[in-house]
Amino acid sequence: YNVSDMKIITVIGSGLIGRSWAMLFVSGGYNVKIYDNQPGQSTKFLSLRKQLVELEEAHMLRGELSAAQQLALLSSYDDLSQALDGAFFVQECVFEQLEVKQSIFHDMERFVGKDVILSSSTSCLVPSKVFSKVQNRSRCLVSHPVNPPYYVKLVELVPHPETAAAVMDTTHALMTKVGQAPVLLKKEIDGFALNRVQAAIIAESWRLVQDGVISVKDIDLVMSEGLGMRYAFIGPMETMHLNAPKGLEDYMSRYSENITRILSSFGPVPDFCGEAAKSVINVSVMVTELPCSVLIKCHLSPQRAIQYSI
Amino acid sequence: YNVSDMKIITVIGSGLIGRSWAMLFVSGGYNVKIYDNQPGQSTKFLSLRKQLVELEEAHMLRGELSAAQQLALLSSYDDLSQALDGAFFVQECVFEQLEVKQSIFHDMERFVGKDVILSSSTSCLVPSKVFSKVQNRSRCLVSHPVNPPYYVKLVELVPHPETAAAVMDTTHALMTKVGQAPVLLKKEIDGFALNRVQAAIIAESWRLVQDGVISVKDIDLVMSEGLGMRYAFIGPMETMHLNAPKGLEDYMSRYSENITRILSSFGPVPDFCGEAAKSVINVSVMVTELPCSVLIKCHLSPQRAIQYSI
Repeated sequence: YNVSDMKIITVIGSGLIGRSWAMLFVSGGYNVKIYDNQPGQSTKFLSLRKQLVELEEAHMLRGELSAAQQLALLSSYDDLSQALDGAFFVQECVFEQLEVKQSIFHDMERFVGKDVILSSSTSCLVPSKVFSKVQNRSRCLVSHPVNPPYYVKLVELVPHPETAAAVMDTTHALMTKVGQAPVLLKKEIDGFALNRVQAAIIAESWRLVQDGVISVKDIDLVMSEGLGMRYAFIGPMETMHLNAPKGLEDYMSRYSENITRILSSFGPVPDFCGEAAKSVINVSVMVTELPCSVLIKCHLSPQRAIQYSI
Repeated sequence: YNVSDMKIITVIGSGLIGRSWAMLFVSGGYNVKIYDNQPGQSTKFLSLRKQLVELEEAHMLRGELSAAQQLALLSSYDDLSQALDGAFFVQECVFEQLEVKQSIFHDMERFVGKDVILSSSTSCLVPSKVFSKVQNRSRCLVSHPVNPPYYVKLVELVPHPETAAAVMDTTHALMTKVGQAPVLLKKEIDGFALNRVQAAIIAESWRLVQDGVISVKDIDLVMSEGLGMRYAFIGPMETMHLNAPKGLEDYMSRYSENITRILSSFGPVPDFCGEAAKSVINVSVMVTELPCSVLIKCHLSPQRAIQYSI
């Protein structure tokens, strides 16, 4: 496929993630057909229409087309066969439950040609499970977005063991074309990359609070006033590379002993829900609205920020 | 102490961190006496002078005083007793080696009254080791900055087991007064909070590359295009709190099973320097200069950014 020659993308599911994918794909000039078997879909469409117009008024609409042009590319279906007709790429965004995902992909396969790419938005399920009921699995992959995809560019592309390299390449090109930042996982792994790194952060932060080392408010400041600023621009490898005169290898020859000693002192996987967790949760005094700085950074209106709850 | 009534701070060591602390303290209106027993100190002062003037010209000077006023607050000494005379707070920034730190604090104690706060910039040594040769340890603490302190506001305040609560409070007030963002560790722990969370990030990122799941470039994108943007504004606890309708407890009742499963699949502490590490280091294609966006964000000139190597 040359993604620039392709026209139609089907989005399965019109929830928050489905609508966000639809907005992204029309911003890239694709005809987007949204499928939802649930009632109330038309109401959801109204909110999306309003959203695109608001974005245009705020000069924050993505892509080169006007809101009206982008809206004209959208259509909705409650018939799966009609929704899939003509599509070269399908992005699934149904409820995050294995059986539901397996079932919709099984249903879809009856209505699409064998070259049509089937992509799932799942965050918690590995491709070999999600696509286990699909016959031709070489065209299947996970394209895991970060919420909200319209504002956070990362997309993790995760292959099934049988996924064709060309399918990964085409999806990478498609995501790049619509302005996202795709990364390529070379094999499936539980949690993919983002949620694994996030889990590492959560675990050590949780332990430090639970062990009485630091408060909830202060561990948040360690990130937002300490590590976070650089991570908004450079990743952990580049940070290390820049932090020693001769780069990454030099960094490790200087600091690996400290890092290894610290890592060796980590406690076990914390209890996030039991009695011990209460000591963390009960001391939490949290804001319920995002600070203004986040709104500016993410180009969100206050309403939308809360709706998306970054 | 009321930190607003205090006048003189001594900075021990005129290296990168020492000069950065000096710049911060004069920006808050304090007289800063820099001590260094090494030759070449006056040359270092020239670069600091130039730096303050450049910052003023770029309208990025911190504090309410002019560069000239701030420069007038600076003085340098190669005599320890003179350097400490009149100070209410001492920030040590000598070479990161236990014996060197222990020795300078032991020397200092001869020249200061018992109420003078002795603070170390150490990042890798716990207070009970650093201050083991000090007699009156109730006035000792670590104030661990993030490099460069003039641009990154976090300061970790870490007590010795004997540190007086009032010493922690006074230091917290001082750091707040000069515009930093202090956090309070309630007890000492190897790596403090920031380097423990950073080690968790490095370990899982390293394992993912070493296990052939993702490239160095892409794991960096997972942070900079995925997690990083939010972490520049909110921490991990607030992120979870905002990611479930009813807050942190609700988040954990929804996601703790996934997080626990992911954490349980983590590999051992990686080998950062041996044969296995070569597979990570050799595939690294790194930039050697910071992207423009980081310079803007950190208000750094290109030269300074590289000098500070964030």
